[in-house]
Amino acid sequence: MTKFDEATQAIKVDDTTYDVCLDDGYAIGGPLNGGYLMAVMLRAVTDSSPHPHPVSTSAQFLKPIPPGPATVRLERLKTGRTAAMTRATLVRDGERYIEILVTTATLDPQAAPHWSGAPQVAMPDLADCLRLPPPKPESNMTLGAQVDLRFDPSSISWLHGAPSGRPESRAYFRMVEPQDPDPYIIALAVDALPPVVFSAGGRGWAPTVELTWYLRALPAPGWLTVLGSGRLVSDGWFDEEIEVWDSAGRLVAQSRQLARVGRG
Amino acid sequence: MTKFDEATQAIKVDDTTYDVCLDDGYAIGGPLNGGYLMAVMLRAVTDSSPHPHPVSTSAQFLKPIPPGPATVRLERLKTGRTAAMTRATLVRDGERYIEILVTTATLDPQAAPHWSGAPQVAMPDLADCLRLPPPKPESNMTLGAQVDLRFDPSSISWLHGAPSGRPESRAYFRMVEPQDPDPYIIALAVDALPPVVFSAGGRGWAPTVELTWYLRALPAPGWLTVLGSGRLVSDGWFDEEIEVWDSAGRLVAQSRQLARVGRG
Repeated sequence: MTKFDEATQAIKVDDTTYDVCLDDGYAIGGPLNGGYLMAVMLRAVTDSSPHPHPVSTSAQFLKPIPPGPATVRLERLKTGRTAAMTRATLVRDGERYIEILVTTATLDPQAAPHWSGAPQVAMPDLADCLRLPPPKPESNMTLGAQVDLRFDPSSISWLHGAPSGRPESRAYFRMVEPQDPDPYIIALAVDALPPVVFSAGGRGWAPTVELTWYLRALPAPGWLTVLGSGRLVSDGWFDEEIEVWDSAGRLVAQSRQLARVGRG
Repeated sequence: MTKFDEATQAIKVDDTTYDVCLDDGYAIGGPLNGGYLMAVMLRAVTDSSPHPHPVSTSAQFLKPIPPGPATVRLERLKTGRTAAMTRATLVRDGERYIEILVTTATLDPQAAPHWSGAPQVAMPDLADCLRLPPPKPESNMTLGAQVDLRFDPSSISWLHGAPSGRPESRAYFRMVEPQDPDPYIIALAVDALPPVVFSAGGRGWAPTVELTWYLRALPAPGWLTVLGSGRLVSDGWFDEEIEVWDSAGRLVAQSRQLARVGRG
């Protein structure tokens, strides 16, 4: 079992209750990363579902949660032959932190797309991509030690005080500990990049309010390519769109989030 | 009060219960249109919220619902200075039909975008756009009588048996009964076009499983422009992305849905 699989374990207490232990290795400052938290909650949802794959996940982030024990409460909304729908809530000491609605279904690993004309944005070669500088230990950005991100240099020019002016963020993604990508890794990948608003001049913690992502195919082994962009920064809000492509060149996930521009 | 405002009324019974009467003027065949149903539920959510604008709405469509009386049950998940979060469920006779998670906030009508570089897709002039042929009465497509849609001809060539091969659908949109657009009209607009998969060779009823839309600005009076596209049709699933622009040329809403390809 990898460290990630262990850190996302959900232990069944009964049909609607799973115990989890939120790992301090996935922190972004004080709170934990939203993608990691979705992965933990999805473990409980899929374990209890008649279908194995979380094809749609919509999350409302009510408040940041620090590491430690917590509970995932489930409520089955629909059980169908094609799809099941579940509500899951992350709670600790009677307080709610995240609310998600999930549709599970059974994807065919051999499915050939009927239409996939939209091309992937071009990425530089892996060898020409850059790592972010290691975070300062006091920043408590422990997530950085779990994921291996190699950035398209043009999408992180904000690091050197020269933001591109467009909301964007693009990187190759894999786990530091070797592990083939799966739906839980993808839940992490859709929220693992610095906010796209950094390259449009934003700074500081940009809290996600809502994030919805669709699993469109089961990923092939190897690097994932994570392509982030945005359409509008206005009135203190921005959208971040993420596409995840696998090493076989297939679109495996689509994500969009609505977040607040940081005050930093 | 317009017919639409009347058809979307939600009458407060108590803090967590609103009575609604689902109008048979918004049917797409037997069931009611999902955008209309979101508008009804949002009336209850915003009436009970400290903030007026539904900036994010995520809906899970559990099962189709025919016209008639129903109830919206609310649960407040968070009450914040910037945003409030609410869960709402559409129920009838103890059965659940739609589950939504909504974030409300207060948008500034005067907000000037900090960044909005992405251009709107070009549309032909209104005079060069086409109406769909009137539906057969026995099809019970009553929604068509409420909305005035003028289509980019190239996006509905499937009507004449010559689909473009790409998932797409583009139209100007307004209510038949004169009414300035507002967030509830936009909820209708993001699910009012024929499924984008029709132009990629799909046919028949394409049930929405999940739809999430963001209200990015308050719309100016006049026509809305509704631009639909998709990224992937695979394994019986397709995504539909909608952008709504107002008459002042501003992006006012973004929507994405995951739906099943029809068997027609």
